[in-house]
Amino acid sequence: MKQTIGIDIGATKISFVLLESQKAIKKKKIATPKTKTKFIQEIKNNLKDFPKINKIGLAVAGILDFKKRVVLESPNLKYLKNFPLIKVLEKELKAKIVMENDANCFALAEAFLGAGKNKNIVFGITLGSGLGGGLVINKKIYHGAFNTAVEPGHQIINFNGPKCSCGNIGCWEEYCSAKFFKRKGYSAQESAEKAKQKDKKALAVFQEYGKYLGIGLTNIIDLVEPEIIVIGGGISQAWPYFLKETKKEINQRVISPLAKKYTKIEISKLGEFSGAIGATLI
Amino acid sequence: MKQTIGIDIGATKISFVLLESQKAIKKKKIATPKTKTKFIQEIKNNLKDFPKINKIGLAVAGILDFKKRVVLESPNLKYLKNFPLIKVLEKELKAKIVMENDANCFALAEAFLGAGKNKNIVFGITLGSGLGGGLVINKKIYHGAFNTAVEPGHQIINFNGPKCSCGNIGCWEEYCSAKFFKRKGYSAQESAEKAKQKDKKALAVFQEYGKYLGIGLTNIIDLVEPEIIVIGGGISQAWPYFLKETKKEINQRVISPLAKKYTKIEISKLGEFSGAIGATLI
Repeated sequence: MKQTIGIDIGATKISFVLLESQKAIKKKKIATPKTKTKFIQEIKNNLKDFPKINKIGLAVAGILDFKKRVVLESPNLKYLKNFPLIKVLEKELKAKIVMENDANCFALAEAFLGAGKNKNIVFGITLGSGLGGGLVINKKIYHGAFNTAVEPGHQIINFNGPKCSCGNIGCWEEYCSAKFFKRKGYSAQESAEKAKQKDKKALAVFQEYGKYLGIGLTNIIDLVEPEIIVIGGGISQAWPYFLKETKKEINQRVISPLAKKYTKIEISKLGEFSGAIGATLI
Repeated sequence: MKQTIGIDIGATKISFVLLESQKAIKKKKIATPKTKTKFIQEIKNNLKDFPKINKIGLAVAGILDFKKRVVLESPNLKYLKNFPLIKVLEKELKAKIVMENDANCFALAEAFLGAGKNKNIVFGITLGSGLGGGLVINKKIYHGAFNTAVEPGHQIINFNGPKCSCGNIGCWEEYCSAKFFKRKGYSAQESAEKAKQKDKKALAVFQEYGKYLGIGLTNIIDLVEPEIIVIGGGISQAWPYFLKETKKEINQRVISPLAKKYTKIEISKLGEFSGAIGATLI
């Protein structure tokens, strides 16, 4: 009976999960603290609710340097930049800690336990404060040449577009994360509530969102051609308002007739703890 | 002494090469015929200059169905669409024929004999009538889930952009193939000649071209993170007029600090027969 703890560190929330025989037997969620000191303290405090386990998996929203074991970039959680997260936490928690990009963890969870269970090439994207991506080939995370792939959120889909938190222009993340909804005047959650009430403006905002999602996914399909794309993250729960538009866009734009016909686009069923679950699998 | 013939079928030219011990010992190049009948006839005629070899490798500018052995799409060489190329040629030439996407062949040639010789993840792009791409991981072509990856030419870099020959809006190919130069009033070759004479307009056109090239390559680096990107195809020969701008754009836009620092961007040294050379290696 192997037990592991996974912690998913996102820009707005931190999720804890205890996995036993591929099942989450204990879960917890807190708001992400605003300072580095509180961040360490909160992780330490919340782990007290979990059994003492000497290995912890960490899913981090950022670009990681595996060799130096630091967070290189975290555009949506800036205090983590260049922070020796693992070293500090290992000292504080007296446990061995492994880390992985959060969207990679999500994709891994989907490939092992979710919609990608029986697929060889699984692409996961997470729609939240930012836009993350992960590619799992034959149940292994694809890391690229320098261990910092896959970052589709910063692909450019409109070089005349708005400025992104990364400093550049026209990134997909500006169109398909929480930032898009903020620019439109309401948060993603508020927009979803309005859409549920059949508010025309909110429905139109989601249609536009769905279109941009389809554009970015087209680029991924044309390049990487996964068997399945699994969509997760908070915003994915509003799929009834955008997914049809996304599929329409993909169907219109993908260049390969085979990829157009056979690529599956599905919403994650693992729920909001999928990143933390993935962290237990690394 | 193993001899193989490779034929690279592009939208504007067809190249023939005879490879012996990894060296091209005989080369030939013709203009691509305008009709399907002439196309078959010309390939047959030109092969008479080569020794009788019972295996031929074909590099094809298009999206291929390996199972059915047909060309599914070839936006820049339309008569190949749904054409059972292999079946017809095998009958005509009485030889076993294998085929592969032309840009995949280029990437393979670079991974085995070119700039990617000592690299594990090699991305090749070809800048010509169209814009092709190929990814070679550990000396094997990456084919994706349905054998029709990698098609970066139709990734969307500006969804408000011009219409592409594929029918969609804002494809990278519209900005970084021969089509871009045509829109600007002169062919790529004419523009290069003008740039050589320090013509200010032509130099500005190449600067713009270099910028767009950097944008598309950024998307590839963020997603796939190759160790090296090798640039080939006719337009690549004009690199002194655009490559600096391309690297500047990549350096500004790539999100991973490691990929930004370490990804190599090089111009192919295998020359215009690289696609045909790659076809002998499949």
